[in-house]
Amino acid sequence: MDENAKKEALRLFTYGLYAVTTGDADTWNAFTANWLSQVSFDPPLVAVSVENASYSLPLIRQAGRFVVNVFDAEQRELAGRLGKSFAKRPEKLDGLRIERTEAGCPVLLDGLAWVECIVESELPAGDSTIVLGRVTDARVLRRVEPLTMLAAGFKHAG
Amino acid sequence: MDENAKKEALRLFTYGLYAVTTGDADTWNAFTANWLSQVSFDPPLVAVSVENASYSLPLIRQAGRFVVNVFDAEQRELAGRLGKSFAKRPEKLDGLRIERTEAGCPVLLDGLAWVECIVESELPAGDSTIVLGRVTDARVLRRVEPLTMLAAGFKHAG
Repeated sequence: MDENAKKEALRLFTYGLYAVTTGDADTWNAFTANWLSQVSFDPPLVAVSVENASYSLPLIRQAGRFVVNVFDAEQRELAGRLGKSFAKRPEKLDGLRIERTEAGCPVLLDGLAWVECIVESELPAGDSTIVLGRVTDARVLRRVEPLTMLAAGFKHAG
Repeated sequence: MDENAKKEALRLFTYGLYAVTTGDADTWNAFTANWLSQVSFDPPLVAVSVENASYSLPLIRQAGRFVVNVFDAEQRELAGRLGKSFAKRPEKLDGLRIERTEAGCPVLLDGLAWVECIVESELPAGDSTIVLGRVTDARVLRRVEPLTMLAAGFKHAG
């Protein structure tokens, strides 16, 4: 396989940009994700790929829930910041305005919209794990354009 | 849960548009997909959500392979056409220019790029199944912009 062709072809896939929030009242995190998709209408399911080595995968497992917060087109800087590792940059969460869903999951008050999911199952996927969640609640906070990987100029594929 | 909020929030997710091709020399198909993402760098893995009731899910299982063909920005009509059910519209494949990968999987010659995958595992996901594939080959055919769900004006989320 031509490694350059593989990288270039995979970078032609289109992605949005999201902050995934998870955890409980004591311990929580928000991290930037783009490998994420709805995968079923009935019931409504969302799948997100989470790095095995991440701080958040155990948090998601423990909480049994996660929230997908959609970034708006103006939140490129925030998406970059939340893309840093919490282990190395715990201060990345400083100043984030959050509230809690009824189930206690943190959500970003300054996002564009959020979708809360309860974890249904997992699938090992190489260096990552696909976490499958059933949508339990959702809110649209503002009516503006979402941020995309292309508009942000980020590369996380290939 | 507010059904309208759920639908509106899920429709803020960003997607590309792809033709997934699969099958063997005798029986093959090409169908439009948007619930699709890379999910691992090492090894390179791609996940696609395929409807359980589809004609293609058994074809993918039998072939053990599928190809993700990236549509270019001018292929909105083709994306709509290949989004029809093969069972109802077998003529949707008429006139498609295809070639075969070394492994025998059909690919679209008029796509923007393609990524061939060998099926590694599956995860049941409501009305669909997440098929996880390891990238085995890839090619970039032209250097133009990819088609997105937003640009196409299609809705397949919510």
